[in-house]
Amino acid sequence: MTDAPAFPLFPHRHLLGIKGLSPADIELLLDRADAAVAISRQSEKKRNTLRGRTQINLFYEASTRTQSSFELAGKRLGADVMNMSVASSSAKKGETLLDTAITLNAMRPDILVIRHSAAGAAALLAQKVTCSVVNAGDGAHEHPTQALLDALTIRREKGRIGGLVIAICGDILHSRVARSNIILLNALGARVRVIAPSTLLPSGIERMGAESFTSMAEGLKGADVVMMLRLQRERMAGSFVPSTREYFRFFGLDAEKLKAAKEDALVMHPGPMNRGIEIASDVADGPRSVIQEQVEMGVAVRMAVMEALLDPRRNEDAA
Amino acid sequence: MTDAPAFPLFPHRHLLGIKGLSPADIELLLDRADAAVAISRQSEKKRNTLRGRTQINLFYEASTRTQSSFELAGKRLGADVMNMSVASSSAKKGETLLDTAITLNAMRPDILVIRHSAAGAAALLAQKVTCSVVNAGDGAHEHPTQALLDALTIRREKGRIGGLVIAICGDILHSRVARSNIILLNALGARVRVIAPSTLLPSGIERMGAESFTSMAEGLKGADVVMMLRLQRERMAGSFVPSTREYFRFFGLDAEKLKAAKEDALVMHPGPMNRGIEIASDVADGPRSVIQEQVEMGVAVRMAVMEALLDPRRNEDAA
Amino acid sequence: MTDAPAFPLFPHRHLLGIKGLSPADIELLLDRADAAVAISRQSEKKRNTLRGRTQINLFYEASTRTQSSFELAGKRLGADVMNMSVASSSAKKGETLLDTAITLNAMRPDILVIRHSAAGAAALLAQKVTCSVVNAGDGAHEHPTQALLDALTIRREKGRIGGLVIAICGDILHSRVARSNIILLNALGARVRVIAPSTLLPSGIERMGAESFTSMAEGLKGADVVMMLRLQRERMAGSFVPSTREYFRFFGLDAEKLKAAKEDALVMHPGPMNRGIEIASDVADGPRSVIQEQVEMGVAVRMAVMEALLDPRRNEDAA
Repeated sequence: MTDAPAFPLFPHRHLLGIKGLSPADIELLLDRADAAVAISRQSEKKRNTLRGRTQINLFYEASTRTQSSFELAGKRLGADVMNMSVASSSAKKGETLLDTAITLNAMRPDILVIRHSAAGAAALLAQKVTCSVVNAGDGAHEHPTQALLDALTIRREKGRIGGLVIAICGDILHSRVARSNIILLNALGARVRVIAPSTLLPSGIERMGAESFTSMAEGLKGADVVMMLRLQRERMAGSFVPSTREYFRFFGLDAEKLKAAKEDALVMHPGPMNRGIEIASDVADGPRSVIQEQVEMGVAVRMAVMEALLDPRRNEDAA
Repeated sequence: MTDAPAFPLFPHRHLLGIKGLSPADIELLLDRADAAVAISRQSEKKRNTLRGRTQINLFYEASTRTQSSFELAGKRLGADVMNMSVASSSAKKGETLLDTAITLNAMRPDILVIRHSAAGAAALLAQKVTCSVVNAGDGAHEHPTQALLDALTIRREKGRIGGLVIAICGDILHSRVARSNIILLNALGARVRVIAPSTLLPSGIERMGAESFTSMAEGLKGADVVMMLRLQRERMAGSFVPSTREYFRFFGLDAEKLKAAKEDALVMHPGPMNRGIEIASDVADGPRSVIQEQVEMGVAVRMAVMEALLDPRRNEDAA
Repeated sequence: MTDAPAFPLFPHRHLLGIKGLSPADIELLLDRADAAVAISRQSEKKRNTLRGRTQINLFYEASTRTQSSFELAGKRLGADVMNMSVASSSAKKGETLLDTAITLNAMRPDILVIRHSAAGAAALLAQKVTCSVVNAGDGAHEHPTQALLDALTIRREKGRIGGLVIAICGDILHSRVARSNIILLNALGARVRVIAPSTLLPSGIERMGAESFTSMAEGLKGADVVMMLRLQRERMAGSFVPSTREYFRFFGLDAEKLKAAKEDALVMHPGPMNRGIEIASDVADGPRSVIQEQVEMGVAVRMAVMEALLDPRRNEDAA
């Protein structure tokens, strides 16, 4: 891992989304992440790969797991990590995202991890700063490291992604997780289904490469993987907001509905879960659930992404 | 300290409370802490004992000194330390303590330091996670590192704990500090007294090994150590809430009341102090006060606890 | 940089303000900062100069750039850095600044970086603690590292400071940035002008060594450097509060007003900027702007200050 001799150079300076990555790019990141898993499983988890590099986590939306995951990934690689919680910062003084990012960029970070409520925020920053940018979620647009960690989890459990039937269930319309997953899973040859109330299905979803269902019974039939999404009622302004009891009855994953999927189907959730709303506790904690594995793979994927973007060979090429 | 050759293996994987520790366990932690004091007194305070280990501080209640003390302890031992301030996290999104802890656990920390308003929170987590858990205060239950740092301070000042008369004064009923101290001081053979208004004395305190008083003059008579507690009016919902002026008159420690104790009695306070409520400023800052020493011992005790729990010999035994 | 062999010993243990520094002290810090610039420009930015030292950032006012700048400066020098955001701390429990600082001091930090709304807060702490104190802004009093980074930016751009005509524009009355800059620029022999509405000009400004103007056209005439200040309406309680539109018309820096200054005049701003209030966007982002350079110099200056204060030779003298 320290020398990472086996991996080809990742051909992008930023990770703004899954869109724009080739299947080879994705496989490269998953291979690197596979190698990174071992590091966090040792008692001595420290590497010097990013020693002396500065990573700034600029989060405009609170997030336990994503920010923590990036923070631990950076620290385990030896980077100096700085968290910018924007609630307690100049956002109050009215500074724009762009001015904040350009200011931070002037402090010479190597990598800027950005989460923001506006779609396109990461791409905008990437045009303005000189460091690498990683999109940790931008509005309803993309959340690429989530899709990568989901793919890593599936690949490690199932041995492959191509050919699998993968059902994504929940609020597809507002979900960057769904969007990044649909793009990635299509790129690697999976058959993607989405299941949601019709009001939470974006129009044109078939053109993105997903077959749509409004019934769990039909959508889960023969699925290898069931990905539940978090019901985010705060994102649904202007949309139909279902009652949670009604939602659970029709779209919550419980043991009964899960029977429609394959016997060895994986159950996944990006977290944090609303138990009893989109997923029943016995399923979330049951033998098919790989929800904790997803969290573990998250750290590994973020290590892999940051190592790949800051690969010292990139600077040699530039110099 | 780096090799810590002289210390026996601490026989517990978690530190959930003083209850359950033998006198030998306590003495072992105090001995290790004694050795740790020197580290923070050097300009070069960095050790590699916990290099590559991950420590997560999960604090559901704000705390300047306890969280800082754990953070510095971990950093000085070379650990990667991550703070989770839960006000700005998924708690808002409704995730439970247990889901948060299990999620963090999946990121493969070595140690989880938890403060929570619910008694038993730390013990609950210890059953669910694979890492070591340190209780940094759980409701009105226990605050074991506080009791250890108090004991270390006393032992260094007085040369021993057994046989000393130690008076704990204030809101005994709601105080985890009092509770942990009563257990520890009894284990090491001190004679413990508690002094409080009768409404702030738990029933059955004698069975815990403390003699109870409602008068400072009587309770402090001949005391070797006077431990004042913070008056925490926010914890007194449903109880008698005294006016601060009245409280100070009867139970606040001032120079006059202190005369009842031995001439060389130590004055202690876990902080943060309410000056003029439970303690007069001239006493808090006076020559018998060891309040700043307590803070210094806090870092040393936390270093010792984390080193003891993560002792590499523990893994060898497991492997 | 690691051994810093060339630099004389800085003769102060604290940096509380520019006042009290000799021109030689200032030049020494600028020389050290010049050397520090290179570190942050490398991919491997880590030094061991402050390895094992503990730096605590105690910020009672939120600040994106100053706190980040100190944090990165410390981390790049190898220090263990701990941030104390006081909104989420014992301030709520009513502990005073002094008790908090003395408590932190008992944890044996080497350096305490303090920002507080009260003028004199840093000097007060310096009397009470045993570590070095750096003033990161105390009320309307001083902000010495800002003045140093401004001076470093100017010196690197213009080759010198002595003899330059430097105009500081905006709310001079409430500005610690203006105050520290006026003192520093006078010490190094610049000719300082201040430009503001008469209600925002402190009386006796001439005695501080600044020529005062109420017209931008006159004040900027022939200026080598134009330093704009942030309009901080929250600080103006009790003063005249201008409408932002009116303020921009008379005192906002736009391309037209800038014509009065020298053709190669530098445009500076401490940030965060109110675009369209005290400065027009095309000027802020224009070819004369060195606003991003100021941010970069900020990290270098803070590295230099902390290295100078914690110079190991200081302890040798003491020992």
